Amino acid sequence: MTDLDTLSVNTIRGLCMDAIQKAQSGHPGTPMGMAPVAYTLWQRFLRFDPADPIWPNRDRFVLSEGHASALLWSLLHLTGVRAVDPDYEVLGRPSVALDDLKSFRQLNSRCPGHPEYRWTSGVETTTGPLGQGVATSVGMAIAGQWLAARYNRDDFTLFDFDVYALAGDGCMMEGISSEAASLAGHLQLSNLCWIYDSNRISIEGYTDITFTEDVAARFLAYGWNVTVVADANDLDQISRAFHTFRAETERPTLVLVHSHIGYGSPVEDSPKAHGAPFGIEGVKATKRFLGMPPDAEFYIPDGIYDWFARGIGARGAELRSGWEKQFVDYRGLHPDCADELERIQRRELPEGWEQALPTFPPDPKGLASRDSSGQVLQAVAKAVPWVLGGSADLAPSTKTRLAFDGAGDFQPGERSGRNLHFGVREHAAAAVVNGMALTKLRPYWSGFLIFSDYAKGAIRLSALMEIPTVHIFTHDSIGVGEDGPTHQPVEQLAGLRATPGLLVFRPADANEVVETWRVVTALRREPAALVLSRQALPTFDRSRLGAASGVARGAYVLADAPSGEPQVILLATGSEVSLAMAAHEELTSEGIASRVVSMPCWELFDRQPREYRDQVLPPAVTARVAVEEASTLGWDRYVGDGGAIVGMHTFGASAPLKQLLNKFGFTPERLAQAARELVSQG
Amino acid sequence: MTDLDTLSVNTIRGLCMDAIQKAQSGHPGTPMGMAPVAYTLWQRFLRFDPADPIWPNRDRFVLSEGHASALLWSLLHLTGVRAVDPDYEVLGRPSVALDDLKSFRQLNSRCPGHPEYRWTSGVETTTGPLGQGVATSVGMAIAGQWLAARYNRDDFTLFDFDVYALAGDGCMMEGISSEAASLAGHLQLSNLCWIYDSNRISIEGYTDITFTEDVAARFLAYGWNVTVVADANDLDQISRAFHTFRAETERPTLVLVHSHIGYGSPVEDSPKAHGAPFGIEGVKATKRFLGMPPDAEFYIPDGIYDWFARGIGARGAELRSGWEKQFVDYRGLHPDCADELERIQRRELPEGWEQALPTFPPDPKGLASRDSSGQVLQAVAKAVPWVLGGSADLAPSTKTRLAFDGAGDFQPGERSGRNLHFGVREHAAAAVVNGMALTKLRPYWSGFLIFSDYAKGAIRLSALMEIPTVHIFTHDSIGVGEDGPTHQPVEQLAGLRATPGLLVFRPADANEVVETWRVVTALRREPAALVLSRQALPTFDRSRLGAASGVARGAYVLADAPSGEPQVILLATGSEVSLAMAAHEELTSEGIASRVVSMPCWELFDRQPREYRDQVLPPAVTARVAVEEASTLGWDRYVGDGGAIVGMHTFGASAPLKQLLNKFGFTPERLAQAARELVSQG
Repeated sequence: MTDLDTLSVNTIRGLCMDAIQKAQSGHPGTPMGMAPVAYTLWQRFLRFDPADPIWPNRDRFVLSEGHASALLWSLLHLTGVRAVDPDYEVLGRPSVALDDLKSFRQLNSRCPGHPEYRWTSGVETTTGPLGQGVATSVGMAIAGQWLAARYNRDDFTLFDFDVYALAGDGCMMEGISSEAASLAGHLQLSNLCWIYDSNRISIEGYTDITFTEDVAARFLAYGWNVTVVADANDLDQISRAFHTFRAETERPTLVLVHSHIGYGSPVEDSPKAHGAPFGIEGVKATKRFLGMPPDAEFYIPDGIYDWFARGIGARGAELRSGWEKQFVDYRGLHPDCADELERIQRRELPEGWEQALPTFPPDPKGLASRDSSGQVLQAVAKAVPWVLGGSADLAPSTKTRLAFDGAGDFQPGERSGRNLHFGVREHAAAAVVNGMALTKLRPYWSGFLIFSDYAKGAIRLSALMEIPTVHIFTHDSIGVGEDGPTHQPVEQLAGLRATPGLLVFRPADANEVVETWRVVTALRREPAALVLSRQALPTFDRSRLGAASGVARGAYVLADAPSGEPQVILLATGSEVSLAMAAHEELTSEGIASRVVSMPCWELFDRQPREYRDQVLPPAVTARVAVEEASTLGWDRYVGDGGAIVGMHTFGASAPLKQLLNKFGFTPERLAQAARELVSQG
Repeated sequence: MTDLDTLSVNTIRGLCMDAIQKAQSGHPGTPMGMAPVAYTLWQRFLRFDPADPIWPNRDRFVLSEGHASALLWSLLHLTGVRAVDPDYEVLGRPSVALDDLKSFRQLNSRCPGHPEYRWTSGVETTTGPLGQGVATSVGMAIAGQWLAARYNRDDFTLFDFDVYALAGDGCMMEGISSEAASLAGHLQLSNLCWIYDSNRISIEGYTDITFTEDVAARFLAYGWNVTVVADANDLDQISRAFHTFRAETERPTLVLVHSHIGYGSPVEDSPKAHGAPFGIEGVKATKRFLGMPPDAEFYIPDGIYDWFARGIGARGAELRSGWEKQFVDYRGLHPDCADELERIQRRELPEGWEQALPTFPPDPKGLASRDSSGQVLQAVAKAVPWVLGGSADLAPSTKTRLAFDGAGDFQPGERSGRNLHFGVREHAAAAVVNGMALTKLRPYWSGFLIFSDYAKGAIRLSALMEIPTVHIFTHDSIGVGEDGPTHQPVEQLAGLRATPGLLVFRPADANEVVETWRVVTALRREPAALVLSRQALPTFDRSRLGAASGVARGAYVLADAPSGEPQVILLATGSEVSLAMAAHEELTSEGIASRVVSMPCWELFDRQPREYRDQVLPPAVTARVAVEEASTLGWDRYVGDGGAIVGMHTFGASAPLKQLLNKFGFTPERLAQAARELVSQG
């Protein structure tokens, strides 16, 4: 441990304290305690080039205890990490300038309260909601192994990156981290290292009030390697731990660090150190203790920038340039693979991938949208080799297993497999898939719609991060039937639709499913939720109907009054569209002019120009009936004051589907009746 | 193991197979494998009187692997458990008649697809979503310990019940069970026994594809006692395990049972045994293997009912009648405690509890609704001694710690404490609190609104079960400020409001908080979510305004145009009501007649007679502006076609609150402008 090591660690601590003090807001406790660990990792181990923070083979650093963001901001600043634009061009300006640090937690600062992916380069994933970071890191490690298996060649090690995640007691208590750790242990992800900041403090007090389990023993039970650092200030001990990790080839590693929250401050080892500035005097006292000038704010001693440049900077530059040279040769020998990798990095798809999409012939009996989606997924995954994913132990039901030759399982010893078994671990599944998407693969996971509840925390983050995670949810309504109300979603659609930036698709038939996948596969910055039926849905004969390509506009006229001037509009999604079609026929036979609008994706429809929206839903036609086997919340926007909504107002029930449709009123007769009433009032 | 033991076990298996075969739907695997374990527990150990399935000191049995419901239905039938009406009167009719078993999974059968609390007596909690049952069982065990500490006296052991939960691999993989197990281990809940049905099979295949952790070691790490049953068909081994549990005084116990899914059937030990009927021939073959008549359906051999009556029936009757005799003496010596217990069982409150509720004087500066709620909670908890709860490690922020004399902590060795530390375990917290509510205490838990996502699975179950769990959520909007978008809820309100039966309250000032607690405390069959601000809200001067008691009707006129005939209505909830009031003043000064409607609880408003609703929102006044710092989903219903909504269309941002209000347009000026525009159009 050199003087410059000590000075660097304390410089980080000083920057964190000052940023938080200036903001009058933030969490100094962890940065003070863990600065030596983060410093050692970055300066001595991390294979990361600040001049190119999106170099594909960089080691990933995830700050799972995201409230300690000041620690990350300080590192990004001191190491000179460069900014990256939305099209993945590295820019000249720094990701975090000193002025950003000085405007920590202020509007538009590159240093917000918690690390935000895509807003500040060098942030590998958005964290703050505890447990998400560690779970996401598992997905990055999986992606690393998969990329290595697919693209490395005897003479070319393009991928061998490691993934580090820094986690606190909170992360360890969250169920999502247990799920993710169990999965990582099973998968023997030896490129994964979690660093557990064990400071024995949580917000309500010492962890001994609620968290007395033996974490090391728990991780051994998961099949992890565990090593302990007894003193978070001992850089050599810390280094030994990381060497232990790097030498491990069959297990993920937990580095358990005994640390002191708020180290050096008057509130060291107290819950008070967690989430509030130390105060001006507290900051000064701490700086005095650390041997730093007490009155200098945002103080960066001479030589510190250079020290980082000679450490992580020089190491990263050499590794990256070596990699780039290697890649030139690789492209010469393996042009197809190189092309794939370049597309992956730019989030582009293979030329002509859409040609693989099937179409489905008209079929009054039809098939469940989970089945048609399963078929389309096979085609998409064949056409786009980096589409991969799995299910939370429901693949036979969600129909998401890739079954073509070579798809295989991703397992220890089978790293090029494209089917993952997430186990009954929905929350981790969604977070793991986020981690894979952050590594720029095109991953999906699947489960029953009801269990989107379990995964909501990670679904939300995919939307906040603007990454194209694909969430596939089947068994989407009372259509579940006998399994009953515990398994029948009612409110989930509303919750997902209310999530900003998430595209929610509920396709009505097999060809809408095709069009949904066409849109979803091409997404680069938006996650999607596919909401699919358990039960069979007729495949419409489109010769007399609106084309399924209308999915891309969110809603479209599926069937219209012969005159094109309907008296009443029937709006529906998914399985209820065929119900609306049946009512439409009934009304037509009575001489009532009706239109059926299929609305598979509200979010896309809301983005259309008013002209299109008014074409689909002419303002003059106020007699409108919406039908959806879900909470009615949100439909008023489309049916308006003159409209009616047929939906769910209670939970469902356990019975065969037909009985449920009658019980809850999802019949063509009731729909037609509602339409008739509105027309006669009009 | 007697012949009657064997015959009973196989009778259960036969009933399960037949019920599932007849329904053409269901999960036979676990009932076949675990019938001997469930049988042994019920017949030899469970202190449960079928003639009074709500006897307060009964042992609780939770079928956490709820898909195995046929197992429970068979037991409820064979033991003759009686039905109970919604007012807790035990009825003469059986809970599960043979005809119910024969109509398994059909509409209105008492034997639905998964166990549903309140629908079938003997079901202690609704299960099906994996992990919920075990987590809920922790709350029941806590409640048992707390009831014992509060109400037992030297000569009176009114409470010493045990809680058993039967869990499968799926339950063990879910994060919620890890959270709950860690908490139970910390709390040393020696009255808790989880039975782990380890059959090594999940839906996607053998568990070795994803679940290879050492579960026993993991539970030892949590501080549990672990004992193993190597053969699920060995009733004596099973009995020894339960004796081990009952002898344990300092730890919860995990009984790890090596079992065979689909035991005796042609698909034994295969994933095919999990979730589909065996088929007519498969059922026959299995019955033959078990030595049962292959062609007899729903076969209950002579003597079996009597055998159960002499086992669990006689034991339960004796224990219950002894308890009731004891209670008569107890009432004589401890009339106040007896009175409390009787109220608890009927879900009634102490006389005059409402007198404890404070009122808050007008105060333009005011206080955060989390703070006023904290104060009201103290009063409620003092008046209702069985109100208790805690926070998911956020009590200092959510203000939910009971601080009065004697409130104390619930910890090992301190079982009468009323403050629980759930740790950073939101999902388990909500499920644990459900378990306490099912034991008829009046519990609450708290966290930030954003983390309601993590707990949604358990929140939903509180609504489905119709139990009065209180979910307290603070930091309810961009009002969170600097912590940024990861901590600022946007879509959570919509998701909660869409949940059938959940009352969602977002009070506008301290006196609305009081009225919210008045409603919530009195709830007997409905859960509530309290949505509270981090930031201070003015306490309105009600002398010129609508009374806060309007909360009970969900929405009410807070301020009106002097004429009582507004040109425009401003609708708002929570922190935005004061914004609406400021806009109202601005409009008034301009001569525009406006009304402010505070809408703290949509669900209650929707239940009011049309007359009241039209009084508050006169249909003739179509100029309406709603404002809420959340997704706009659902507001259209109240503002109508002529209205406008000021809400959130993106995620929030990290900055001080004032900057955020400007950025996202939550200002009186913008609101007034929106109102002006509507009025001028009108």
